Amino acid sequence: MIHNQHYDEGVQGETKKFNLGDFPLQQGATLRGAWVSYRTHGTLNAAKDNAILFPHMYSGSHKDMEFYLQSGWACDPENYFIILPGQFGNGVSSSPSNTLPPYNMGAFPNVQIEDDVIAQHRLVTEEFGITELQLVTGWSMGAQQTYEWAIRFPDMVKRAAPIAGTARCTPHDQIFIEAHMEQIKSAPNFNNGFYTEPHSCHVGLRRHAQVWGVMGCCTEFYKTEAWRQYGFSSTNDFVQGYYANWFLPMDPNNLLTMAWKWQHGDSSRNTNGDLAAALGRIKAKTFVIPFEQDMFFPLGDTEHEQQMIANSELRVIPSLWGHFTMLSMDQTDHKKIDDALKELLAIDV
Amino acid sequence: MIHNQHYDEGVQGETKKFNLGDFPLQQGATLRGAWVSYRTHGTLNAAKDNAILFPHMYSGSHKDMEFYLQSGWACDPENYFIILPGQFGNGVSSSPSNTLPPYNMGAFPNVQIEDDVIAQHRLVTEEFGITELQLVTGWSMGAQQTYEWAIRFPDMVKRAAPIAGTARCTPHDQIFIEAHMEQIKSAPNFNNGFYTEPHSCHVGLRRHAQVWGVMGCCTEFYKTEAWRQYGFSSTNDFVQGYYANWFLPMDPNNLLTMAWKWQHGDSSRNTNGDLAAALGRIKAKTFVIPFEQDMFFPLGDTEHEQQMIANSELRVIPSLWGHFTMLSMDQTDHKKIDDALKELLAIDV
Repeated sequence: MIHNQHYDEGVQGETKKFNLGDFPLQQGATLRGAWVSYRTHGTLNAAKDNAILFPHMYSGSHKDMEFYLQSGWACDPENYFIILPGQFGNGVSSSPSNTLPPYNMGAFPNVQIEDDVIAQHRLVTEEFGITELQLVTGWSMGAQQTYEWAIRFPDMVKRAAPIAGTARCTPHDQIFIEAHMEQIKSAPNFNNGFYTEPHSCHVGLRRHAQVWGVMGCCTEFYKTEAWRQYGFSSTNDFVQGYYANWFLPMDPNNLLTMAWKWQHGDSSRNTNGDLAAALGRIKAKTFVIPFEQDMFFPLGDTEHEQQMIANSELRVIPSLWGHFTMLSMDQTDHKKIDDALKELLAIDV
Repeated sequence: MIHNQHYDEGVQGETKKFNLGDFPLQQGATLRGAWVSYRTHGTLNAAKDNAILFPHMYSGSHKDMEFYLQSGWACDPENYFIILPGQFGNGVSSSPSNTLPPYNMGAFPNVQIEDDVIAQHRLVTEEFGITELQLVTGWSMGAQQTYEWAIRFPDMVKRAAPIAGTARCTPHDQIFIEAHMEQIKSAPNFNNGFYTEPHSCHVGLRRHAQVWGVMGCCTEFYKTEAWRQYGFSSTNDFVQGYYANWFLPMDPNNLLTMAWKWQHGDSSRNTNGDLAAALGRIKAKTFVIPFEQDMFFPLGDTEHEQQMIANSELRVIPSLWGHFTMLSMDQTDHKKIDDALKELLAIDV
């Protein structure tokens, strides 16, 4: 274990834990005394049929999607009971940084999206007794989890909105993730994940942030110097102030756990590698929501999957923010995404 | 100086040197006893009006564009006298690896595209007495040099074909190049550019290759496993066998010199930063030739510049090879590019 205050409640806000006990992972290891973190908003009704599940993205936690939960917006806590579940490796659920030997730090086992979804399913059913979800939605790795939910538990998920993510990680994303993992590990003090100071590997996190800067926003964003309107003074000031600033507080092993999981995301494992069959299992009314200029998940890749989902529509969100459109630095992005979610929730299923 | 056999004639083939004497650089330093390397094909006619100049790309040398010079093709040595000039930092022209102290290795001064073009201009005029070039063409950094030639010497350049490159490096390319320079410097033995073994920084070159793999070919290339037809056995085998294999023999400082030059490429310095004015100086009949799926130089960026060139046309080359279309692993790419050059050379100017 290595204490990093980024994962404390002072930064993360109130964090609930759902204890999983001894939790066997897809890759073979058993996480003993494992837990998944979460936070909820709104009230579960008596029929227990007003729940929304909103998993989070790489490098994030339950707190990061909270601004989508607002009165008058799609995920309105006055109407819905919204669960923001964690994922393994996020620093507040079971993670390299908070796990005891033998699975501490660099020895933390590889985790798959299925593990997250199985843990979340136990949270939803055992803790809350919920048997149907009005909506599962999430961005990026949250979209991977959304797909896994809709494919693994088709009768539970009424509506699904995978945002800027894929059911099966593309080969291009695999090499992109490989490169960004290599950045993290390039820190001179990395020591196979057994560093002794929480922020001693900052050089690797800085390189990792730099590569995200290259792929994160679209070329037009940089050409038009769109960063100016957000208070940055130069391209590099934006890369440092936005990307490096985001990643520097985090634990390198935690990021690597999530990155490996993202890289190996493949919901077609449910159907022996047949992606069409996997997506064919989805019963949810589905809006596939890509971001027009996303370099991580180009339109073609998301549309390719959408076409294999029976009851689905493609809703492309235009923005210069590329993959990072979800964070809605441009307030109009928030509304565009929310409008799609609102429309989906209004559909009778 | 550090000997690296990659730059010997055994690898590079016959290399001619044009001595520049003491050569003052744009950034202030003077390279003493500097030279630019080159090779020629075909015969300069008596009128000295059948010359083509074909500068090369980042990490390359005169040898790499030679396969474009073939009987029956656009740059036909039976009709034209074709000069393949070097650039500073390529390892065969004056470079960190072959320069004596004080400007050896990590102390080699920063060089700009203007320096290359001024050196090449001296080669063309002083060595050969050439006053007009039927065509200047080049790929990537070769395109930067092509633009600089057409803007700096508008009366000399009859036709220009910048291929997959820009007159002014875009902000997105600047951060991409910054990231790839950081990869090279991340090698534990880099020692500010004063490594003692020529290949001791291979870890940095491997990371650099990995980032090139992410941006080099398009996502569709990976999705369709197009690498299979070129004898690679997996995505990673392609990244290693194609990109790492390409970069590993090279000198890290040499690459950094070229990278900095690319990053700071800006032909609008000819006109006090006014890009439209710079491009407006071009008298050459110009074909701007982007590659449809190029992530380094997206269509929009090249088209933006083309629209500012009076006598110009945009010729988009489709290929899954993205920026690397030029190397024509797919033989049909070679023909598509050559057809455009042929058409340009056939135009009376």
